[in-house]
Amino acid sequence: MPRQLYELAGADPARRFSPYCWRIRMALAHKGLEADVVPWRFTETDRLAFAGTDKVPVLVDDDRVVHDSTPIAEYLDEAYSNAPPLFHGDIAARHFTMAWTNAVLHPAIVRLIVSDIPAVLDAAARDYFIANREARFGMKLEQVTAGREERLPEFHALLAPLRHVLSGQDYLGGDEPDYADYAVFGGFQWARCTSPFRLLAPGDAVHAWRERMLDLFGGLAREVPAFE
Amino acid sequence: MPRQLYELAGADPARRFSPYCWRIRMALAHKGLEADVVPWRFTETDRLAFAGTDKVPVLVDDDRVVHDSTPIAEYLDEAYSNAPPLFHGDIAARHFTMAWTNAVLHPAIVRLIVSDIPAVLDAAARDYFIANREARFGMKLEQVTAGREERLPEFHALLAPLRHVLSGQDYLGGDEPDYADYAVFGGFQWARCTSPFRLLAPGDAVHAWRERMLDLFGGLAREVPAFE
Repeated sequence: MPRQLYELAGADPARRFSPYCWRIRMALAHKGLEADVVPWRFTETDRLAFAGTDKVPVLVDDDRVVHDSTPIAEYLDEAYSNAPPLFHGDIAARHFTMAWTNAVLHPAIVRLIVSDIPAVLDAAARDYFIANREARFGMKLEQVTAGREERLPEFHALLAPLRHVLSGQDYLGGDEPDYADYAVFGGFQWARCTSPFRLLAPGDAVHAWRERMLDLFGGLAREVPAFE
Repeated sequence: MPRQLYELAGADPARRFSPYCWRIRMALAHKGLEADVVPWRFTETDRLAFAGTDKVPVLVDDDRVVHDSTPIAEYLDEAYSNAPPLFHGDIAARHFTMAWTNAVLHPAIVRLIVSDIPAVLDAAARDYFIANREARFGMKLEQVTAGREERLPEFHALLAPLRHVLSGQDYLGGDEPDYADYAVFGGFQWARCTSPFRLLAPGDAVHAWRERMLDLFGGLAREVPAFE
């Protein structure tokens, strides 16, 4: 039987619009693999019963049935390891986590802690910091952080991608931490070392991960002047 | 001369709170490398002139001077390739981009296009889709997408991490696309195939990247029913 990929389709069966199916469509092409695409629609759950799922994509490859895009991608790299890998290991491929940290996490954290930072600076740095940051924000630092308790749920919502990853694995790097963990951790450690404001609540997977990070290397990051 | 790391410090020189310096501190530990940490404060730009920068971290390693956290991390992996790598190549290490796509990008896109989707569905799927999504959103689909032109700048702001990465490299995977590109692209392709609403503007690095994605594999993703 030729390889088959069940894909979500519109009224026009050629209109395939599921983002997850597109991942696999492109992944198959990347690997140089062909597949017959089988149109599937939301209401046709019975047609996927054989795969033990009610969602596409489903890949049928010889005697293997695989569903969900990520498991399919992993399967493809395993089964076709001689074809170009879907997952690159070079640093370029990891820049996204760092960019998110820089563009999203840090700006969010600074709005929760910046008014506490001057207190940990020496006098010259404090003057510079206050003037520079007040110019940047166009307001007093206390105004920047005003209402932060009320804004905390919004911050926690922002951590959703992080929380998602860290609910399924110990580290962003997988079973072991890697540079992405250190990049994200830096933001939290920045806060922990400058502000008594608690960013994370126990019970949050991000909090548990941060605790693991603090335990690494004999507690290297824990054993420093900090607020919690 | 022993290895030196210039780190941002607070009034208490032991209080090192720069997130970027913490990346390197942790990275050095990960590699099993020691360094004398040299406290540095915001105002002491002259002290970094030798490194051609005005920011820490700066690493001085024998006759090498490296500044900025990412170049330092790359340097460490190159110079100490026998030590555990900072950048893992396994799939676990790439989950973050996928999680961001799922938790941030897709929910944002759906709020811009969902009311257009029914029109591309067959009748049965359309009824299901409308009922299911209206229940999920607690409102009519037209209400979900109301004011989307005005909300577009907010959406573009959300793409900042993506834009940052894609301004510096052709693909999230680096010089060549990998699964992370396909994951993110799936969201845009989802929109492109279901809605006439234009999410991206020419001139945006994300738009240029999407064009490259559309050109891959002989225009595989371009040559399908779509709105733009």
